[in-house]
Amino acid sequence: HFGAMKWTWVLVGFLLCFCGLSLGKDALDFPDYDGKDRVHHLSAKNYKSILKKYDVMVVYYHDHPGSSRVAQRQFEIEELNLELAAQVLEEFDDEDVGVGLVDAKLDKDIAKKLGLDESDSIYIITDDEVIEYDGELSADTLVEFIFDVLEDPVEIIDNSRELKGFKNIEEDIKLMGYFKSHKSDHFEAYADAAEEFHPHIKFYATFSAKVAKALDMKLNEVDFYEPFMDNPVVIPGKPYTEEELVEFIEDNDKPTLRKLQPHNMYEIWDDDADDDEHIIAFAEESDPDGYEFLEILKEVAEDNTDHPHLSIVWIDPDDFPLLVPHWEKIFGIDLSHPQIGVVDTNDADSVWLDMDDGEDMPTVDELEDWIEDALYSSQKSYTIDIDFLKYN
Amino acid sequence: HFGAMKWTWVLVGFLLCFCGLSLGKDALDFPDYDGKDRVHHLSAKNYKSILKKYDVMVVYYHDHPGSSRVAQRQFEIEELNLELAAQVLEEFDDEDVGVGLVDAKLDKDIAKKLGLDESDSIYIITDDEVIEYDGELSADTLVEFIFDVLEDPVEIIDNSRELKGFKNIEEDIKLMGYFKSHKSDHFEAYADAAEEFHPHIKFYATFSAKVAKALDMKLNEVDFYEPFMDNPVVIPGKPYTEEELVEFIEDNDKPTLRKLQPHNMYEIWDDDADDDEHIIAFAEESDPDGYEFLEILKEVAEDNTDHPHLSIVWIDPDDFPLLVPHWEKIFGIDLSHPQIGVVDTNDADSVWLDMDDGEDMPTVDELEDWIEDALYSSQKSYTIDIDFLKYN
Repeated sequence: HFGAMKWTWVLVGFLLCFCGLSLGKDALDFPDYDGKDRVHHLSAKNYKSILKKYDVMVVYYHDHPGSSRVAQRQFEIEELNLELAAQVLEEFDDEDVGVGLVDAKLDKDIAKKLGLDESDSIYIITDDEVIEYDGELSADTLVEFIFDVLEDPVEIIDNSRELKGFKNIEEDIKLMGYFKSHKSDHFEAYADAAEEFHPHIKFYATFSAKVAKALDMKLNEVDFYEPFMDNPVVIPGKPYTEEELVEFIEDNDKPTLRKLQPHNMYEIWDDDADDDEHIIAFAEESDPDGYEFLEILKEVAEDNTDHPHLSIVWIDPDDFPLLVPHWEKIFGIDLSHPQIGVVDTNDADSVWLDMDDGEDMPTVDELEDWIEDALYSSQKSYTIDIDFLKYN
Repeated sequence: HFGAMKWTWVLVGFLLCFCGLSLGKDALDFPDYDGKDRVHHLSAKNYKSILKKYDVMVVYYHDHPGSSRVAQRQFEIEELNLELAAQVLEEFDDEDVGVGLVDAKLDKDIAKKLGLDESDSIYIITDDEVIEYDGELSADTLVEFIFDVLEDPVEIIDNSRELKGFKNIEEDIKLMGYFKSHKSDHFEAYADAAEEFHPHIKFYATFSAKVAKALDMKLNEVDFYEPFMDNPVVIPGKPYTEEELVEFIEDNDKPTLRKLQPHNMYEIWDDDADDDEHIIAFAEESDPDGYEFLEILKEVAEDNTDHPHLSIVWIDPDDFPLLVPHWEKIFGIDLSHPQIGVVDTNDADSVWLDMDDGEDMPTVDELEDWIEDALYSSQKSYTIDIDFLKYN
């Protein structure tokens, strides 16, 4: 459900491939679309046989293109970019990945049979699952997401270096389970639950007593980590059934602090259950000012992880350079410094904390107070004078 | 000097902007090219007046497009994508950034006057400097690079949280200087040196005795950090002139371990002074296996930082999803696991360490031995039987 969203695509001209002699120099050449048609138009007649040909099918369930020149051109570009993705995926050896189109006007019934809920969306259909892709519509982000889909839903942590790698992942929700072995029934329940959320939520497991000890975990325990939180929540009631795990995760999938990333941007943006409002924090992690503000933000999140209404979306401007001038304009802010504000996702009305170009960073307490005020007033009334929310 | 490189571009159709009512929903819409011509064709007649109009000018010094349909189309796409970049940059309020083209056949003399050395390259011309852009030719990576160019060449570190942010930056060469104040002559020499390398090399400074103490620095000292090294080298002979700093940096700008990033990929790839060979390591940082291998690699680099011939290029496949199938094919490797090998950049001949799909990770010592062998044999002869290099 991308709504009014438009497409960004890595589109490249088609050049002939001068393979052979200059392979080494070509090692960093991005693929050019070769002009060959690979994207299938799925219809009632052909869809079953096409799906049979592939291990994984990427389906763009698109609205019927309008008749205007602009709409036609837009759709052509979308198709060209899917062609580029299909070409790249064709070269991929591990699995056969196909790409197809389903027209929401002409082939609604096929969409229904395939389990595609909403048009203007991309779905990845595997043997067992239909996975919705809610990220940036660029060929590279989509292809990377498909690689993630093809990985095992549960990653095994064997030793202390891998454990360090596990700890290093802080931007996503992650779970860790400690089980006797691959053959344990409890591990199987865990792996089944993992499939339900793969690849959006990351599942790890260990069979090593040493790793479990380092994490202070008991056998058959599963720990749930919010993004940016060092300490997990132990899921109560072990050992768990698949359903118990699924239920717990669904009840806890709205973390206090989340990062907007190209592969999940529309999922997070649309997830504004509370009053169509988001608390948005802009901070560039690779900038000392931005890093400082992010540290404060993480402390606020850690202090308030039990707050039912608090969900802060962190955006690193470095991840979305083409949107920076647009955001600066519609929000009236300068993104060369950290910013935090409350944004109404309907009309983009927003109020921002005054931080004096990053010179006057709030303390953890001051930021908590400001957020508290902002949340309180937004829940009470929309017509309130928002000036008093401004810091200082 | 992009050589045989081709272009990847974020190309989007042009839709009318439905601004106004649905601004909030549009907050995440990537810009569509609106069809307006913004890119200037620089000629002997107009270039002076056009350059005067802008604070910063982005110039694509391109080869004269060939007459074939393919070449024409390729150039059209390049232009369209520069138009998109120009449109995004036009919205940017802080500085006026223009975009222009110089044709290498028709306007060689203008290129010479502007200081553009090589065709098929993008240059960013500011008041003081002509900066070559050697990154991926995509609108988003280019625009992000321009934002970096517009930032101050020296970032000031004021407190311990910012210091943590400084320490967190490990992928680039960085320098830290400790000076009395902004007005110090020694700081000025440092800032002048920074301009020479901006934004490729990151310069930080502090005026805080507390920060300096935490870094164990004396007044007017400048420390040089290789990527991925915790401990810096103190540049000898303080206080330094601008020339002394520039000389030291130029003598040390080939680190033991470097990360290939979209904004510097061609710069690093072409920098194969030693026998056209690269030691390439593929490792996905967000994967426990990849993280483990990277930890080993960092230890090897730290142990061998004084080795004159050792320069390892680390590639995180997550940064280049569209190239993954291409690399798997030309190198004959599986990139779902870490890999390390020696690649001849002329013919893409390569030899890879056998790590048994990441199950059999080498120790630091084993990896050092393997690299030593690989380097030694490659320097001795190209016709040597490379099988013995393979690990185990």
